[in-house]
Amino acid sequence: MTTETDAKRVIANLRELARKTSTPEGAQRVAWGPVWREARTWFKAKIAELGLETKQDAAGNLWVTLPGESSRSILMGSHIDCVPNGGWLDGCFGVVAGIEALRRYSKGKKPPVTLRLVDWADEEGARFGRSLFGSSAASGTLALKDVENLQDRQGIKLVDALAENGVELSVVLEAKKALKSIDARAYLELHIEQGPVLESLGKPTGVVIGTFGVERHMIRFTGQAAHSGSTPIPMRRDAFLAAAQTALACRDIGLRHSKPGAGVVCTVGVVNVEPKIVTAVPGVCEISLDQRALDASVLAAMNREAREASERFAKENGVSVEWKHLWHIEPRPFDPKLLALCEEAVREETGEATRLPSGPLHDAAEMVPLMPVVMMFSSSSRGLSHCKEEDTPDSHLETTIRSFQRLVDKTVSYVAQVK
Amino acid sequence: MTTETDAKRVIANLRELARKTSTPEGAQRVAWGPVWREARTWFKAKIAELGLETKQDAAGNLWVTLPGESSRSILMGSHIDCVPNGGWLDGCFGVVAGIEALRRYSKGKKPPVTLRLVDWADEEGARFGRSLFGSSAASGTLALKDVENLQDRQGIKLVDALAENGVELSVVLEAKKALKSIDARAYLELHIEQGPVLESLGKPTGVVIGTFGVERHMIRFTGQAAHSGSTPIPMRRDAFLAAAQTALACRDIGLRHSKPGAGVVCTVGVVNVEPKIVTAVPGVCEISLDQRALDASVLAAMNREAREASERFAKENGVSVEWKHLWHIEPRPFDPKLLALCEEAVREETGEATRLPSGPLHDAAEMVPLMPVVMMFSSSSRGLSHCKEEDTPDSHLETTIRSFQRLVDKTVSYVAQVK
Repeated sequence: MTTETDAKRVIANLRELARKTSTPEGAQRVAWGPVWREARTWFKAKIAELGLETKQDAAGNLWVTLPGESSRSILMGSHIDCVPNGGWLDGCFGVVAGIEALRRYSKGKKPPVTLRLVDWADEEGARFGRSLFGSSAASGTLALKDVENLQDRQGIKLVDALAENGVELSVVLEAKKALKSIDARAYLELHIEQGPVLESLGKPTGVVIGTFGVERHMIRFTGQAAHSGSTPIPMRRDAFLAAAQTALACRDIGLRHSKPGAGVVCTVGVVNVEPKIVTAVPGVCEISLDQRALDASVLAAMNREAREASERFAKENGVSVEWKHLWHIEPRPFDPKLLALCEEAVREETGEATRLPSGPLHDAAEMVPLMPVVMMFSSSSRGLSHCKEEDTPDSHLETTIRSFQRLVDKTVSYVAQVK
Repeated sequence: MTTETDAKRVIANLRELARKTSTPEGAQRVAWGPVWREARTWFKAKIAELGLETKQDAAGNLWVTLPGESSRSILMGSHIDCVPNGGWLDGCFGVVAGIEALRRYSKGKKPPVTLRLVDWADEEGARFGRSLFGSSAASGTLALKDVENLQDRQGIKLVDALAENGVELSVVLEAKKALKSIDARAYLELHIEQGPVLESLGKPTGVVIGTFGVERHMIRFTGQAAHSGSTPIPMRRDAFLAAAQTALACRDIGLRHSKPGAGVVCTVGVVNVEPKIVTAVPGVCEISLDQRALDASVLAAMNREAREASERFAKENGVSVEWKHLWHIEPRPFDPKLLALCEEAVREETGEATRLPSGPLHDAAEMVPLMPVVMMFSSSSRGLSHCKEEDTPDSHLETTIRSFQRLVDKTVSYVAQVK
């Protein structure tokens, strides 16, 4: 069992890493850059203290292996990279808690199964715009053609930034072979929630039931610009009001599809009107729509109903509507057996186990097609993340670290005994 | 009575003026510039053909006087200036029809009252942003401090542009004295509708009952930006959805206050959201609101109800709301006696008389506090104006010109006989 001291050591390590890799504006461990390399140097030193080694795969992911009696492996993963001016917990929380798990199993006799910790490269995609870089290379979903021409804002090519870090773009998919070659039986990821749900419930720790599927579109309404004074309301073809009705209907659709423990979300984040002047009825209005749900059939229904609503309100307002697809990802529900273990672990530590989906994506999503996966969240104060204000009370972090170590122990026992 | 030939002459003159002052992009008679001066030179020549003279007042307005038996005056006014890439009818329609009215009275014996035609300077405000420049100087509502520092987009000062046209900014308000010194008993303005109402009713000509009052504001909703994936809908403080509900409520308020023959309008033309990204709930949304009505108490009620709606929807969405006043003008209803004459004129020509308010402002609004005023509209094809597509069928123009000449005749008789 993890002692209080062990949990405090994880927090102390996180603060040490933050001091080394932050400015007053926040954490600066942007993937492929010097501060990120410094963070990994720190990580390697912590691993070396355990008498273990790190090994970089073809995609730049950093692996640690603690051999067990069996070659069956349990993977713990997260990412030490962050967005510019990021928080002190996003990503590195899982990595540093993973070091602690290895520390516990590195003392005394060999564990019954092999334990592996992976620091995925460039989870955030903050510099080149492609998130889940390392984990998608390892899972095989990364398409080279989508990334080979990427540049950062300074015009530096991804291929050159990778080379600086010993990664050759043309062979990054070899990381997939490496992942296949190990006998991985479970993937565990610890992360902060980055949302307000656990805090609002007064819970330190949550069981993550999967990552949301996402439907992302731009919806363009085209009516007729007209003089604000001379055009009677019933004769207008107001593109903005059609968009406003659609946005509100999308919220209603989301609320209707939300059930206790199976909430969905939808967001209109971008709104553009034309000609955008005080004295003109908008002739064009374009909005973004981002819908997320854990159940693929619910997500499909939400999207279908949003389309129907947009068409109905377009017609009512005498405007036309056109949808442009931006992005889609299937929901990735986690493994029932690992979920049960995760619930046990959290319940033993906190007396109950709150289940919640993950709205943001995580490297865990890339592992779902390959092996049983589960995630655990700690609460996030005020739901803030990707900013220097990101925080979690120490007591919540400690409870969550202890819960995670219980999950590791339970998973070790479970994988060891599976026939 | 105006003959068919007379009406056709007005249209021929309009086409001649358009040829002289347009490019393929539309009419270019922007006030204070060379093409505008060319248009006025053409106007002066047409007046000279009648044996009459033009005289520029201190504000740059161009006056023609046809003395009658009495010094009591009837004013006909409009503007020969236009927006860049404007239409062939906006403004100059009234000026050129006025020339025809003078032509008819300049033959034979003196009219019983004095007839005056004024080409107001810079009705559009297209170059310096101050519309109704000449008419507001003449009415005395122009505040020198509001305009003395105006510059155009090239950095040319209004004061210098005026000087190029023989107008000294410091004394433009002397135009007020000039207007006061003539014994003006009625102001008549002919214009195109610039909206779709008459066309939609199949009417060539309409009786304008007044110019709308306007309430113009920016409404800013402030909530909390949040991650589109991790923030459940019920926990959001979505500034855009509060704005969307308010915009739709404002339309409902407008529809509720509209009565047959007394429509009101309201428009949300500007919409800005922040941070304006696909994956973030908008933390801020700012919208413009432009409300117009002919009845001051209706306008005040619409504005009050819009404020209440914005506060209600702000509260519902957990956001705050702040209003910023942009502009206000009182409604300017026209004179009942002149309205009755205008109705008679239109009815005699077309069999009935459609009444409608004017959403756009006109120089006529500046004359309302000084004397009895009425306006007459011709239809506008597709409601378009301020663009090269602006048009009206010749048959509608002819009917309207004949109706306007009837109105001039009726007003001459009326003013002559008033005790």
